[in-house]
Amino acid sequence: MRIARFLDPQDQICFGIPTGSRSAELLTGNLYTGLRPSGETLMVSKWLAPLDPLNIFCIGLNYRGHAAETGAPIPEHPIIFMKPTSSVTGPDDPILLPASCAQGPEVDYEAELAVVIGKRTKDVPVAAALETVLGYTVANDISARRWQKYGGGGQWVRGKSFDSFCPLGPVLVTAEEIPDPQALTIGCELNGQQLQSGFTGDMIFSVAELISRLSRDTTLLPGTLILTGTPSGVGFTRNPPVFLSPGDRVRVSIEGIGILENRICAP
Amino acid sequence: MRIARFLDPQDQICFGIPTGSRSAELLTGNLYTGLRPSGETLMVSKWLAPLDPLNIFCIGLNYRGHAAETGAPIPEHPIIFMKPTSSVTGPDDPILLPASCAQGPEVDYEAELAVVIGKRTKDVPVAAALETVLGYTVANDISARRWQKYGGGGQWVRGKSFDSFCPLGPVLVTAEEIPDPQALTIGCELNGQQLQSGFTGDMIFSVAELISRLSRDTTLLPGTLILTGTPSGVGFTRNPPVFLSPGDRVRVSIEGIGILENRICAP
Repeated sequence: MRIARFLDPQDQICFGIPTGSRSAELLTGNLYTGLRPSGETLMVSKWLAPLDPLNIFCIGLNYRGHAAETGAPIPEHPIIFMKPTSSVTGPDDPILLPASCAQGPEVDYEAELAVVIGKRTKDVPVAAALETVLGYTVANDISARRWQKYGGGGQWVRGKSFDSFCPLGPVLVTAEEIPDPQALTIGCELNGQQLQSGFTGDMIFSVAELISRLSRDTTLLPGTLILTGTPSGVGFTRNPPVFLSPGDRVRVSIEGIGILENRICAP
Repeated sequence: MRIARFLDPQDQICFGIPTGSRSAELLTGNLYTGLRPSGETLMVSKWLAPLDPLNIFCIGLNYRGHAAETGAPIPEHPIIFMKPTSSVTGPDDPILLPASCAQGPEVDYEAELAVVIGKRTKDVPVAAALETVLGYTVANDISARRWQKYGGGGQWVRGKSFDSFCPLGPVLVTAEEIPDPQALTIGCELNGQQLQSGFTGDMIFSVAELISRLSRDTTLLPGTLILTGTPSGVGFTRNPPVFLSPGDRVRVSIEGIGILENRICAP
């Protein structure tokens, strides 16, 4: 099932199956215990991020090509950082360039496969880890590179946490439609130019491996979101570097899930 | 007001003002929009963390003495990392030593003043920042030092995220009772031995400065928790090092707020 979240014309938050660019079949029930088609079609006044996550874990340097382009060694353990839930934004929303980033261009894109945990999970073995997945969506792990590198003593959270730095969408595709999350093409276009073009099979730690490792001695609650890292081609490693500017349109696409497009706005 | 959260004998989650070791006056209403004493006294079957936070920001190396003992320079910007909400535990709960930390002792204590944001806040100036505070509680920023240092490519989240690694309590003291959060003694005892003995006035970035900086281009939602760093005396910097072992009792105390005591349990 392809699940979207949206505001109806009365500004109620609804789940639905998209039936057109501004319409959806209403789903009733709960995202984690089960949604069912209602047969009722609603007008959509705004598409939202397909979920309001509880905790957002992010994985750094999880594609061999991206680790290589940054000059970093292949990590022995997943590099884990977090984004606050306040950074989440939807497919109809702009990415806001922070006033704190006004010293010069530094805001970068990162196309990422995002995994939504559907059930309370702890110490799950790799072989059973995909059974905990409710579904997948597309994420853009927006990153302010100066803040990431220099603004927090080496900790990345500040540079990854500004409002609108976690666009998600357009839909959550439930796990049965993605039997192998390591067999998807993933890419990013900026103003129509392809800048990332990767394959989820190139992840250093697979989705199942990440869930298993994150769940060691750690409860992953329903609504936990895992951003699984980005392939090569991010802006700060290019020559010349590419950063996001007001008016740009950035499109992240993942095979079988969809296209997440956001425009960039000045603060 | 001194607000506790607890389970009543029917396992309902309640807010109340403690009136004894196992009793409280029930508070009605909402933590963020207002709680009022009901006049009704309830038996407490278990004290819980005084809130279920939304996002947990933590500040590294925010006391001059602790920065010095770790050999780190005085930071120019606050060092920001996060803990997942799944790491929160209450004053009646044990701190669990993770099975992932079984290679040898590595789990450490950090006494911290925790700030609870009460209203939606963005780009707040330092002078107005304390007006956004709902109250304060005591936190212990439990840290697995090997995972923190070696288990995530330099990112601290993995070593700070295991279940029960964020004890909070015993109460949330509302802001009007703490007119100056930089005028509090803060300490930590392990099995009756004083190992940390600090003063919040020694913070490098004050509570108001931290809120102002965290809110730059970033919405702090009600329920955002900020752990403001720890004074000197943590276990890994001692000679010989001190780490937590099963059976230990660790007590964090902050003047005007209270004492948070947890016992340490094997996995």
